[in-house]
Amino acid sequence: MKQTLLALLLTAALGSAVAAPKSPAKPAAAPLPKKTAQEILAASPASDWRALSPDNTLLMDLASGQVVIELAPRFAPAHVANIRALARGGYWDGLAILRVQDNFVTQWGDADGEDAAKARPLPAGASAQLPAEFSVPIDRIGREAGFAKLPDADGWAPRTGFAEGFPVAADPKTGKAWLAHCYGMVGAGRGDAVDSSNGTELYAVIGHAPRGLDLNITVVGRVIKGIELLSALPRGTAAMGFYDKPEQRTGIQRIRLLADVPAAERPALQVLRTDSATWAQLLDARRFRSGWFVHSAGRIDLCGASVPTRPAP
Amino acid sequence: MKQTLLALLLTAALGSAVAAPKSPAKPAAAPLPKKTAQEILAASPASDWRALSPDNTLLMDLASGQVVIELAPRFAPAHVANIRALARGGYWDGLAILRVQDNFVTQWGDADGEDAAKARPLPAGASAQLPAEFSVPIDRIGREAGFAKLPDADGWAPRTGFAEGFPVAADPKTGKAWLAHCYGMVGAGRGDAVDSSNGTELYAVIGHAPRGLDLNITVVGRVIKGIELLSALPRGTAAMGFYDKPEQRTGIQRIRLLADVPAAERPALQVLRTDSATWAQLLDARRFRSGWFVHSAGRIDLCGASVPTRPAP
Repeated sequence: MKQTLLALLLTAALGSAVAAPKSPAKPAAAPLPKKTAQEILAASPASDWRALSPDNTLLMDLASGQVVIELAPRFAPAHVANIRALARGGYWDGLAILRVQDNFVTQWGDADGEDAAKARPLPAGASAQLPAEFSVPIDRIGREAGFAKLPDADGWAPRTGFAEGFPVAADPKTGKAWLAHCYGMVGAGRGDAVDSSNGTELYAVIGHAPRGLDLNITVVGRVIKGIELLSALPRGTAAMGFYDKPEQRTGIQRIRLLADVPAAERPALQVLRTDSATWAQLLDARRFRSGWFVHSAGRIDLCGASVPTRPAP
Repeated sequence: MKQTLLALLLTAALGSAVAAPKSPAKPAAAPLPKKTAQEILAASPASDWRALSPDNTLLMDLASGQVVIELAPRFAPAHVANIRALARGGYWDGLAILRVQDNFVTQWGDADGEDAAKARPLPAGASAQLPAEFSVPIDRIGREAGFAKLPDADGWAPRTGFAEGFPVAADPKTGKAWLAHCYGMVGAGRGDAVDSSNGTELYAVIGHAPRGLDLNITVVGRVIKGIELLSALPRGTAAMGFYDKPEQRTGIQRIRLLADVPAAERPALQVLRTDSATWAQLLDARRFRSGWFVHSAGRIDLCGASVPTRPAP
């Protein structure tokens, strides 16, 4: 492969780090680069990383591998509680991925969910009806969640940042905060009624962030590992990316809550804390480009920076 | 499948049309919805559609199907001229897709391009060296290109809009206009030197718009049909999504310029004109949501709206 291409890829994918001013309005004021993104990660203290939360992590097993999803109880407490009950009851085991719409979402659940005669029954402790959880009071986010406002303008919301690893948007005028529909985010499909989602039908974003869905549907978490197992699936050719034939669907072997998985089977994975200095340095590395880059935007996009994970040391 | 889900999908994917004020600052001022996106398209006059340009369209044949790429000579005249010569000389025929990096790009070219002994020679009329074409004078865009400024704020550039079917960003202060790195856009890979791209190595964006690449690399066009043949490929597991083994690569049967394809073999495809009233209505349909949507953002994202194509009537 071309070394020159590698240079492009490396820089484009990770950026290069600079000890830069927070203001994206002054990219010219950024000092010369000091460390690359890899160097920043290599130098990160252990305290900047966290383990997976057993009660807030789902493991989806596909024939192709495992997808790790982190749940967001602070933003969707009722849905997350229901998803825990669904996983504990083996609700998705043997069900399938029903649709993959290019540049939009990959969705899974019960193909017969609307057919009372065929629908898989909900396990004990799972509710068929939940309240809509499109947003939370803005005062629920903040120091407690390690939320720090990004200086970068966002066309969709007056305030954005990261809280507990999730991309968050907020509007002080309405007092609402919500999870943004970025790549890899997981939401609960609903019908016309705002309270028609119960977590049985879930989707993951696999394309350009459909931020227009924000505040219209309950977002429950984020894929932190294995998104490529969902994004590289064959697109469905029926309307909206549904598969024409059942045999085209990708089967779900099982979805378990990490807490129910034997210690020996748990993925030894750590997630970078978004309230850490390392994360702040990585964001600046993306704002203030150098090396291969001849133009530095001096900004980032809320959905343009994904939170790193690593094997537990 | 769930009808309720279909409702979600339909609305999320196409939005619903309203005869709305242009200002996204006043979503509340938007009248009640009148037509859906499908109804807008169904009612579009034939004059709002255009045929493919024989000299500015590439047909990439893969075993899985055909990818149609529209070139942008107004933005990258030297690269487009070289790409025409490369296609005419059959440069890519039998080469392969070398890398697929999740949420970033799919890239193709000559795996031995950097090895003088093995590199495929350039065909007659193709140049090894081209000038960088990262931007064009802003006055080259405008009425002639059917450019209309979008009212929607964009965090990356003070001015954005669509010109001849392409998403364009511009900055009156610098006098520059450039193609934005949206989903499906095609660019020419380069090394550290700004003039090190010649169009032999091309990539298509298959994830969240990497706008940080804007003004750093030459963008040559857009995939207008068949992007799913590039976005659903297995991700490469080596650094930056390159494939570990040659046998993992997807072969390119051939890439032809439409002008060189017998009339009987040309795809009968039309593209919606982005200087048409139909396109303006579709954008408003995305800005001012209704029906399934309970929250209307009153705005769109330059990279969140893709230009429709249809079989020629």
